[in-house]
Amino acid sequence: MKELAIVLLSSGMDSAVCTSIASQNYRLALLHFQYGQKAYKKELECFQKLVEFFKPEKAEIIYLPFFKNWGGSSLISNEMEIPEKEEEEEIPSTYVAFRNAIFLSIATAWAEIIGATKIFIGVNQIDFSGYPDCRSEFIEAFQKAISLGTKPETKIKIETPIINFSKKEIVKIGIKLGTPFHLTWSCYRETEVACGKCASCKLRLKAFKEAEVKDPIPYQIS
Amino acid sequence: MKELAIVLLSSGMDSAVCTSIASQNYRLALLHFQYGQKAYKKELECFQKLVEFFKPEKAEIIYLPFFKNWGGSSLISNEMEIPEKEEEEEIPSTYVAFRNAIFLSIATAWAEIIGATKIFIGVNQIDFSGYPDCRSEFIEAFQKAISLGTKPETKIKIETPIINFSKKEIVKIGIKLGTPFHLTWSCYRETEVACGKCASCKLRLKAFKEAEVKDPIPYQIS
Repeated sequence: MKELAIVLLSSGMDSAVCTSIASQNYRLALLHFQYGQKAYKKELECFQKLVEFFKPEKAEIIYLPFFKNWGGSSLISNEMEIPEKEEEEEIPSTYVAFRNAIFLSIATAWAEIIGATKIFIGVNQIDFSGYPDCRSEFIEAFQKAISLGTKPETKIKIETPIINFSKKEIVKIGIKLGTPFHLTWSCYRETEVACGKCASCKLRLKAFKEAEVKDPIPYQIS
Repeated sequence: MKELAIVLLSSGMDSAVCTSIASQNYRLALLHFQYGQKAYKKELECFQKLVEFFKPEKAEIIYLPFFKNWGGSSLISNEMEIPEKEEEEEIPSTYVAFRNAIFLSIATAWAEIIGATKIFIGVNQIDFSGYPDCRSEFIEAFQKAISLGTKPETKIKIETPIINFSKKEIVKIGIKLGTPFHLTWSCYRETEVACGKCASCKLRLKAFKEAEVKDPIPYQIS
């Protein structure tokens, strides 16, 4: 029997492609977080559709409401606007403090309990948003924490299959593997159709354009 | 003005002594987790009393209900008994998968948002329960993940002031600093008075006995 892998699935294009990649060789356990992000409804809706599509062995939605109270990120806080222009700060205002570490630590706990041997995460350090917790140095350090902080017999490895791919390459791999891009949501905003103006929409639009593939989801501007 | 420190405060004797230590040099932000532990009511009650005692600048209770659904630990699952005898397994059944990593990652996020520079955690690797995420190697690896996974200007350090002390020494330091041991709860069980039989009660009773100090809380057996 194939081994079990957890995939962190936000419902964005990167994590959806990661799910397609993981599904080639593993039984799937899909993990989604609702942490107060503005696009929470769309992401949840897409996650549920992706669960129907991938038919994983397990699927779990974890609610982390504390970020909403703490604020500090334009991805979450209603008092901060999602930016449309390049920001001057090194780290964009959409950065959510240590988010990937929280996601990975909860994924690790679940993996240890259900016996999963891999955790797939769709971080990317090429066409990326500049978040520190998306870089390979961080992932390597976290891997070490997993190895030292779990039972001696537990073997869990973080897999980052798209970390060094361009967004264009990610689209191409997704097309090849049949990733259902029409069921994904990348926009930072909670709108009926993607805004096309936030950093995440811009990266996605650029990716499909460069890959010479039509993005199947509608945009407010095109 | 003194710097701000987060203290992970379960309400057990170790974390209470840690709070006393942190309060010497820092403004306090106390962080408590309710993660489905059997002793949740007692721990929460004690946390609230400790907040009244220490009068921190901030206090936060985080609810993580998913462990209750996942099971796998006798500290949480109603289907598993809290053991009273030495267990044969290397890691006791009370181990909660990767718990300290989850606590530390959420503490780090909060620290980055509120500007705290230290995270105090009362882990101890001398008279301890054998949990892998209590050892200094794990803490060092996690410290590296914090440094690499947060903003470049963020400086957060994990402080483990009692990691190499015996339980006896921890009691003595607590007495010296005025730790309110009468407001703490160490028992793994949800009983009106501490059971005196679980591994946590046994370690605590041994500590007070060796320190030649009377434990101010009542026990079912003495």
